[in-house]
Amino acid sequence: MNELKLIENIRRYVNLNDEEAQTFISFWTERNLSKGEYLLRNGEICRFDTYVASGALKAYFINAQSGKEEMLFFAIDDWWASDLVSFSTQKPSIYSIQAIEHSTILQIGYQSFQEMLKKLPVMERYFRIILERYLGSLQKRIIYNQAYDARFRYQDFIETYPEIAAKVPQYLIASYLGVSAEFISRIRRGKKGS
Amino acid sequence: MNELKLIENIRRYVNLNDEEAQTFISFWTERNLSKGEYLLRNGEICRFDTYVASGALKAYFINAQSGKEEMLFFAIDDWWASDLVSFSTQKPSIYSIQAIEHSTILQIGYQSFQEMLKKLPVMERYFRIILERYLGSLQKRIIYNQAYDARFRYQDFIETYPEIAAKVPQYLIASYLGVSAEFISRIRRGKKGS
Repeated sequence: MNELKLIENIRRYVNLNDEEAQTFISFWTERNLSKGEYLLRNGEICRFDTYVASGALKAYFINAQSGKEEMLFFAIDDWWASDLVSFSTQKPSIYSIQAIEHSTILQIGYQSFQEMLKKLPVMERYFRIILERYLGSLQKRIIYNQAYDARFRYQDFIETYPEIAAKVPQYLIASYLGVSAEFISRIRRGKKGS
Repeated sequence: MNELKLIENIRRYVNLNDEEAQTFISFWTERNLSKGEYLLRNGEICRFDTYVASGALKAYFINAQSGKEEMLFFAIDDWWASDLVSFSTQKPSIYSIQAIEHSTILQIGYQSFQEMLKKLPVMERYFRIILERYLGSLQKRIIYNQAYDARFRYQDFIETYPEIAAKVPQYLIASYLGVSAEFISRIRRGKKGS
């Protein structure tokens, strides 16, 4: 069931016949995370690439000046949740990834990932394409953080990621956008009134 | 000569025999950009993927609040300079890319890029790997912008990108880091004195 979800995701971007899908899935292991459990801690090496079948995770780092958690990304159902840089270089991560609710994930280890790519080169294409998309969201975030005000960024966030806006607590979204939770409450109250 | 540079770059990540290299290069066209010439303007579709053989370009967007240019990235010798999101979706770009000195580039059009990937699937792997690296630099930038002060970010920038720090005017680096040019001058004077 969870494996099918991942295969469906992949087939949105590349062709994978049933035999290839079977081979692909044989590399992955299902795992459950309790609420609050860490997938990765700052300073650890990311040993697994992780697909979130269901649940919600936050990736965050600590602000060196304020000591507060700052959100890097959220991963909910049918998303990826890994530090790909740490995973691909096998060097320590500069951030942490933690489940914010009970989550079911599929994981592949570093060596298995390399083997899988050798057996199924078509997956190079899949990962290239989804990286392009993720890269686009990061570039947009850098631009929007510098070029637009908080109200605009909040509106864009809820339009771009309605599922995350519905699932993730507001104070975490506020942290992601670099605004206060009160600011978001004010905007939401303002919207209801208009 | 410039084509060889690109092939050398690729061979740092994947194996490409001479015949494949020849096929690959046949898809690319060399072009010169004068200082100030645009590779891409905000709102246009990025029609080409671009490798910078030599020169320097800036990618920037306009701050909606201040009206000022803000730097997204720089591309110098042996780097890529495209809006990959606009290129892969063939939708308008949200930023501009402009030569800040005379530059020599190699370009491939959207259709040719797809054909090239079909003929040389190994290039999927190359682009996956360099995307991973670029993605790492974007994530790091988001984290550093929020988590560290300007002095730390400047030091990290000149250590991570010494070639860019040496080549690109200081006021553009200041814009990239979100600090004033005076701030960088002060740090540099401070360093000399210590």
